[in-house]
Amino acid sequence: MQSFMDWMKQSDIQASFITSKENVFYLSGFRSEPHERLLGILAFQDEEPILVCPAMEKEDARNAGWEYEIIGHSDTDRPWDMIEKSVNARIRKVHKWAIEKEHLNVERYEELKERYTGAAFVSAEEKLRVLRMIKDEKELEILRKAAEFADFAIQTGVEEIKEGKSELEIIAKVEYELKKKGISEMSFSTMVLTGANGASPHGNPGSTKIKKGDLVLFDLGVVYQGYCSDITRTVAYDHYNDKQEEIYQTVLKAQLAAVEAVKPGVKASQLDKTARKMIADAGYGDYFPHRLGHGLGVSVHEYPALTETNDLTMEEGMVFTIEPGIYVPNVAGVRIEDDLLITADGVESFTKFPKDLQIIK
Amino acid sequence: MQSFMDWMKQSDIQASFITSKENVFYLSGFRSEPHERLLGILAFQDEEPILVCPAMEKEDARNAGWEYEIIGHSDTDRPWDMIEKSVNARIRKVHKWAIEKEHLNVERYEELKERYTGAAFVSAEEKLRVLRMIKDEKELEILRKAAEFADFAIQTGVEEIKEGKSELEIIAKVEYELKKKGISEMSFSTMVLTGANGASPHGNPGSTKIKKGDLVLFDLGVVYQGYCSDITRTVAYDHYNDKQEEIYQTVLKAQLAAVEAVKPGVKASQLDKTARKMIADAGYGDYFPHRLGHGLGVSVHEYPALTETNDLTMEEGMVFTIEPGIYVPNVAGVRIEDDLLITADGVESFTKFPKDLQIIK
Repeated sequence: MQSFMDWMKQSDIQASFITSKENVFYLSGFRSEPHERLLGILAFQDEEPILVCPAMEKEDARNAGWEYEIIGHSDTDRPWDMIEKSVNARIRKVHKWAIEKEHLNVERYEELKERYTGAAFVSAEEKLRVLRMIKDEKELEILRKAAEFADFAIQTGVEEIKEGKSELEIIAKVEYELKKKGISEMSFSTMVLTGANGASPHGNPGSTKIKKGDLVLFDLGVVYQGYCSDITRTVAYDHYNDKQEEIYQTVLKAQLAAVEAVKPGVKASQLDKTARKMIADAGYGDYFPHRLGHGLGVSVHEYPALTETNDLTMEEGMVFTIEPGIYVPNVAGVRIEDDLLITADGVESFTKFPKDLQIIK
Repeated sequence: MQSFMDWMKQSDIQASFITSKENVFYLSGFRSEPHERLLGILAFQDEEPILVCPAMEKEDARNAGWEYEIIGHSDTDRPWDMIEKSVNARIRKVHKWAIEKEHLNVERYEELKERYTGAAFVSAEEKLRVLRMIKDEKELEILRKAAEFADFAIQTGVEEIKEGKSELEIIAKVEYELKKKGISEMSFSTMVLTGANGASPHGNPGSTKIKKGDLVLFDLGVVYQGYCSDITRTVAYDHYNDKQEEIYQTVLKAQLAAVEAVKPGVKASQLDKTARKMIADAGYGDYFPHRLGHGLGVSVHEYPALTETNDLTMEEGMVFTIEPGIYVPNVAGVRIEDDLLITADGVESFTKFPKDLQIIK
């Protein structure tokens, strides 16, 4: 919160209203799914911040550690009047507001604009993305644990592979076992894709059944204490052919090379290019149509983006995925993905499920 | 779509941009989860509408039956320029735009405003809510099927009740069995609350284990072909005491009375009052803190709202829940909820799971 307030001061922003549940959680430690109700944090340069939330969640916010003012509104309250009053009690005039322009809706924006006519409205999102990039020790501990659950989920899914089982049946089993361990939210819709489905650019899992000689691709992650994991593994059922093996080994080599290249000071683009070049050299350049990876934290996709064109210098404390893939229609789809942390002298992998080409019998 | 275009004409709105996935689906039959990518329908008074979606979803949109223009944009395209061009090809000038003010974010609003300076922006949401209230035969067929899956889920959950099972374990089993039947999305986070948890105003399911003498409350629903179901049942495990029975029978009587009162021409408020009065007369008025019910369709909560103050006249073709409840802290929480349709001469219940107080042994 202090770094955010410092940024406000430097940018001559008198007040911010942060409304996405991800950034509210990041700034307050309070996780809430407000649906259509108003949730947000009012921040200032020097004064104490204010949490705006449904009245019935006040206690939850206190339990999550919020020690400042709370504007708890019931469905019959006029929260915007309450906000105006509390803001005006803290500061004299707002010339510049920071808001989340990709999150705040027009209705709420009009409420603010009406009450602060003449004020400029700038976006707080870029700053929050940059702040969220470097994780502290507490965040790392949670991310490690989230990755452990992802490993467990892959193990569960792999054990479930059997002739005639459908993709959806395997997903059901994986999420069932996770729920029994207390995981109630996945970081995105779990993917299990078998055979040709794994090679489709935006395959959706369905009733396709696993058969011998398929490669089976798992891509999944869990939300644990507000933080996400994200892992991909591809395994062979019963046997594989030479082409499938060649594709698998190409992806694996590219993935290992990119992971090997991770250290403080390397550019994000350099990591992408390392993997991309190996895949292109093997003749599969046209079949790797996506970026190498993405940051991971409160959101499953956040900064930094590991693309060919992002020349951001990577720093200690960043957590991200490395996930090259090759998708040859009607032949095979392979992707291998780990969750990684840049340490002082290299890299730590949070996900640990084996990456050698496995045959499941 | 035609009714919406008629409304635009009456309201002197030259162009609309509808961007929530629910309303895009309602107007087009195309279901998409675009995440941060731009999805929307451009509608006009007389000209053919345009679908805006990620390029890789064009084929899905065609398969869903969309027969008009599609602006498919890739991540390197400038979709707003493409939109401006297509709109200008259709109509000369936009004096008034209709948008979803509760959905469109500030960033996108600024893109539109910049290109149509001087235009007024009004909300399309109220009109779409009213249009969506009356369901046609095709929608009713889907809603009936969605309710069947909800019944099945309750049956599955009830059979899973056993001493020492946790709420989350039962949820895992219910969703596992649904997934095996091809249901991959719940209409909201499944609730199984046992004992004192069922009486908490905003209980979250967790590791609490079921014990003999508990009332167990299930509240769940599925998404089937884009439409939602929503059912609540409360059952007793092993035995119940007099107080629990009194509360249960009070809720049941109130629920049955409100359902009995449903017919074309009745006011929404009248239904709420019917149930509320019976609960108050039994001395539990303070323990029924929410509205009687809500409309059901593409969204799990939509129009009409069945509240004490909504004097809307109910019409044939409306689908909604009736779900009175009584929550006495540390004693019992009971809610009973059905999905109902107003027919020409009364009511049809889509959910059919028995409502008599059941003891699970």
